[in-house]
Amino acid sequence: MAKHLQRDLNNLQRDLLTLAGLVEESIHKAIRSLQTRDVRLAQEVIAADPQIDLEENHISEECLKLLALHQPVAVDLRRIVAAMMITTDLERMGDLAEEIAERAIALASPPILPIPSRLQRMTDLTGVMVRHSLDAFVNLDKEQAERVMHMDDEVDRLNVEIIQEVMQNMKSSPALIEPGLSMFSATRHLERIADHATNIAEDVIYLIEGEIVRHRVPAASPPTVVGEGR
Amino acid sequence: MAKHLQRDLNNLQRDLLTLAGLVEESIHKAIRSLQTRDVRLAQEVIAADPQIDLEENHISEECLKLLALHQPVAVDLRRIVAAMMITTDLERMGDLAEEIAERAIALASPPILPIPSRLQRMTDLTGVMVRHSLDAFVNLDKEQAERVMHMDDEVDRLNVEIIQEVMQNMKSSPALIEPGLSMFSATRHLERIADHATNIAEDVIYLIEGEIVRHRVPAASPPTVVGEGR
Repeated sequence: MAKHLQRDLNNLQRDLLTLAGLVEESIHKAIRSLQTRDVRLAQEVIAADPQIDLEENHISEECLKLLALHQPVAVDLRRIVAAMMITTDLERMGDLAEEIAERAIALASPPILPIPSRLQRMTDLTGVMVRHSLDAFVNLDKEQAERVMHMDDEVDRLNVEIIQEVMQNMKSSPALIEPGLSMFSATRHLERIADHATNIAEDVIYLIEGEIVRHRVPAASPPTVVGEGR
Repeated sequence: MAKHLQRDLNNLQRDLLTLAGLVEESIHKAIRSLQTRDVRLAQEVIAADPQIDLEENHISEECLKLLALHQPVAVDLRRIVAAMMITTDLERMGDLAEEIAERAIALASPPILPIPSRLQRMTDLTGVMVRHSLDAFVNLDKEQAERVMHMDDEVDRLNVEIIQEVMQNMKSSPALIEPGLSMFSATRHLERIADHATNIAEDVIYLIEGEIVRHRVPAASPPTVVGEGR
């Protein structure tokens, strides 16, 4: 029984990393399509989403089967519960990548909105958060998970600054209002991806310590402007 | 043992309904503060969020304890898993209510943006979805859960129409660009609340049938405009 459980847990981890790989690729492509106005790349992201949804359902069902079959306790139980939580975050990140790709397609057509100057930094940082949160999960690395949680503040701050810049563009020309809204949405989605990376980091700490830390780290409040309460 | 499990499951259901009550009240107040530009009411919503987060953590920990202690199977296991999923949705709905309240405070100051004509219908519908998804959970009512899932399409459509109206206002006056972005965010958050009500309805079907239906109902695609891929 215990041997079967270990084998099933290893398979679960493998499936979860497959899903993480798909989601990471989608995020990477979505970000690049936004920055380079590459419609074809954005369409690849949209086409990949059903596969991500299928993988998520598969993993969720596996988790439930493992709970029912092995009735695990202690760290094994936590591994399954953490896998369920991380899977939910990954699926939502995939959705957000798809939404960014849809905005990228809208933004590829005239009138052309200038790419906000801090977008590169924000996308780089978000990419690092996603990668490191997954690394922290694989290596059960608490310090790395904590670093991810602290990076989220800078992403929030960059998002606020980008919104200010986009708003200036919108005020300069009514033709830029519609693309401005698309960019506003795209960076908001990016900021949400960083939030989900933070959730995964929190799940890693739960997995290591058996303690739920969601909501427990009081983040330094970034300045808020329109539309961005958090 | 079985008697203890039933007692613990009943307590879990009671706690979940307490959380649902708090979240429903926050959503209701947030919507009203947006429509009536009532800053005091919006501040009440913001002040209530830490309590919602505490309740969520408490319930999540209870679920994990029940899994570890009773190693439940079949429908008891599903009740706990559904409670975990619904709790996550409720907490996120509470966050979204708080974000709407923050936008409501911003929108209460001049320059005054006209309230979009379809906002009332959208907020009414979202309120009904939230209430009915929770009723479906309490009564294990599959038909009601399915009705909630179908109502989401109209919310998405109304959101698209509201964005068009807000965009017209923004184009008519640069001073309305900033409040326009706030309204854009607020209705987006409202639409996300309806999405979470849909998730709860899907969890109810999982609870009744033991089958995960997330992603399985192909929704009629609403027309998309800026910022609103889904």
